[in-house]
Amino acid sequence: MEGLVRCPANHVPLTPISFLERSAKVYRDATSVVYGDVKYTWSETQERCRRVASALSRLGISRGDVVATLAPNVPAVYELHFAVPMAGAILCTLNARHDSSMVSTLLKHSRAKVIFVDCQLLEVARRASDLFNKAETEPPVLVLISESDGSVPQHPSGISEYEGLVASGSSDFEVQRPHSEWDPISINYTSGTTSQPKGVVYSHRGAYLNSIATFLLHGMGSMPVYLWTVPMFHCNGWCLTWGVAAQGGTNVCLRKVSPKGIFDSIARHNVTHMGAAPTVLNMIVNMADSRRPLPRKVEVLTGGSPPPPQILLKMEELGFSVSHLYGLTETYGPGTYCAWKPEWDSLPSDQRSSIKA
Amino acid sequence: MEGLVRCPANHVPLTPISFLERSAKVYRDATSVVYGDVKYTWSETQERCRRVASALSRLGISRGDVVATLAPNVPAVYELHFAVPMAGAILCTLNARHDSSMVSTLLKHSRAKVIFVDCQLLEVARRASDLFNKAETEPPVLVLISESDGSVPQHPSGISEYEGLVASGSSDFEVQRPHSEWDPISINYTSGTTSQPKGVVYSHRGAYLNSIATFLLHGMGSMPVYLWTVPMFHCNGWCLTWGVAAQGGTNVCLRKVSPKGIFDSIARHNVTHMGAAPTVLNMIVNMADSRRPLPRKVEVLTGGSPPPPQILLKMEELGFSVSHLYGLTETYGPGTYCAWKPEWDSLPSDQRSSIKA
Repeated sequence: MEGLVRCPANHVPLTPISFLERSAKVYRDATSVVYGDVKYTWSETQERCRRVASALSRLGISRGDVVATLAPNVPAVYELHFAVPMAGAILCTLNARHDSSMVSTLLKHSRAKVIFVDCQLLEVARRASDLFNKAETEPPVLVLISESDGSVPQHPSGISEYEGLVASGSSDFEVQRPHSEWDPISINYTSGTTSQPKGVVYSHRGAYLNSIATFLLHGMGSMPVYLWTVPMFHCNGWCLTWGVAAQGGTNVCLRKVSPKGIFDSIARHNVTHMGAAPTVLNMIVNMADSRRPLPRKVEVLTGGSPPPPQILLKMEELGFSVSHLYGLTETYGPGTYCAWKPEWDSLPSDQRSSIKA
Repeated sequence: MEGLVRCPANHVPLTPISFLERSAKVYRDATSVVYGDVKYTWSETQERCRRVASALSRLGISRGDVVATLAPNVPAVYELHFAVPMAGAILCTLNARHDSSMVSTLLKHSRAKVIFVDCQLLEVARRASDLFNKAETEPPVLVLISESDGSVPQHPSGISEYEGLVASGSSDFEVQRPHSEWDPISINYTSGTTSQPKGVVYSHRGAYLNSIATFLLHGMGSMPVYLWTVPMFHCNGWCLTWGVAAQGGTNVCLRKVSPKGIFDSIARHNVTHMGAAPTVLNMIVNMADSRRPLPRKVEVLTGGSPPPPQILLKMEELGFSVSHLYGLTETYGPGTYCAWKPEWDSLPSDQRSSIKA
């Protein structure tokens, strides 16, 4: 169901792309992304995203095309949250735990033209490609995301590599802003535990407003240091992929969630905020050998069912301040309007209510 | 120049009215407004605003009508920032320092149908009414805002009084939400130092986005305590009238800005944030006899030309943390799109760039 709204002809559509543009000015030399020994500033991130958008454009990607990822929380996935929309395209972050069959199904359903694949998931993606009936449908172009030390693992010739795209892209690329803020920016598939995954489309406007709602909910002031323990491929990291850019924060990327990884990252980067599923809270509390004193209080936002009081208590003792996502209807209330799809119904109820609010 | 945007037919327009609705749920029993011994909670403020909207409706105000105010920072003016739009109408807050002639001119220009007048400005408003050629144009209905102790000063019979409207209004009133987020919510007149004041129209969308941009700029987290030293009648208090509601904060109202009033309010209400023109900073720094220790650091946002270093230094010594409004193009950047009028040009340059951004 569509309608028309009368508006000033020259208005600028709301889009998270503007968050990156602003941070590249206001927080130019502040750290945007850190991952192991890799570190970028906001102006570098903008430059890299523009180059990737340019490279995507040269690969034939244009307005409305879908670009997929199959990867954990590595810097490339963060950058693609901007680079793909900047090429006018739609980002589809697949769950990195899916098997080849599911990946193949979702690539077909989304009609992805390119897929960015983490080096550790290359075989899953290649088998997914093999499941295409190539007489009917061409599988998407595969781009490898190497590990961040720059060593490109063994892979068949003819496959592009992410850093190669960054290097080959033009930094003068003209960003393709959405024609309307209601244009799609991403497709998120539900987990598919009860049936086939369903696709949910986010608009530029919905992503913009949700990003703000989420960082406000999370109590993130200017320049937070956010530890990525929740997957970016899950609802675009609750829109915090874009939200951290809006506040000029630092994204601490983590390939694998482990207590040691969490405590090391917190100590090394002075983390201020993190998200955590209840299982991650259990992991932190129960694996005492990795614990170490926190340099400062860390705000933790947890979702799903409320954590048991003893877990909360132990977390507080360790120096974390845990907030539970409650009443998203209210907390998202003023700002959440995504392009709507009837497939909402299969989403978890808290997401459903947050999206409907 | 108008255009049309394709959008979901059932989308909910962005409007600051939703900030009040949310705070009345999430921050129900928290203090919304405090002024002398008067104190309201967010649920009370919502109830009072609904009643005033109802009373305005009974006075004949309907969608698109203009309702003016001529008053300093008293609670009624705060409430009217919600009550007037909730009646579908447009708020026009006149500068409380204007003389009768200017007030009359602006009432005619804005075609205000009702004007809410502070008890100390009644004579100005009555003389402004007398300047109407009543054969041609009926002057607006005058509603008196009494002093908050409830004592209604001597005034001619036949003039309604604000608290009377609150009492007579219905709390079941159905809020008139804007049909489109581009509908006007307020008209602000420029100061008119160089020529006749020009009217600038804010849209519901612009007000919503500007409110968020401004409280983010001001570093306001959840539940700030905001001291109203900058006039609400000036650009709707930089949209912080609505912005404080968005964050469930407390509005500390102050009829008259004086160092004693400022220090007393800070001590009594544990103020976290305030705005201040450079003259107010001078006032604070130079009138030592009113100074007293601050209970906590107070964030001060100052605008206009940068304050001299010695003023900043003294303010810091007193326990204030002063931020200067710089580069509004950038800081408002991602979120500022108001309905546009060619009269922008007469605005001060910082406002102009913030609005254009």
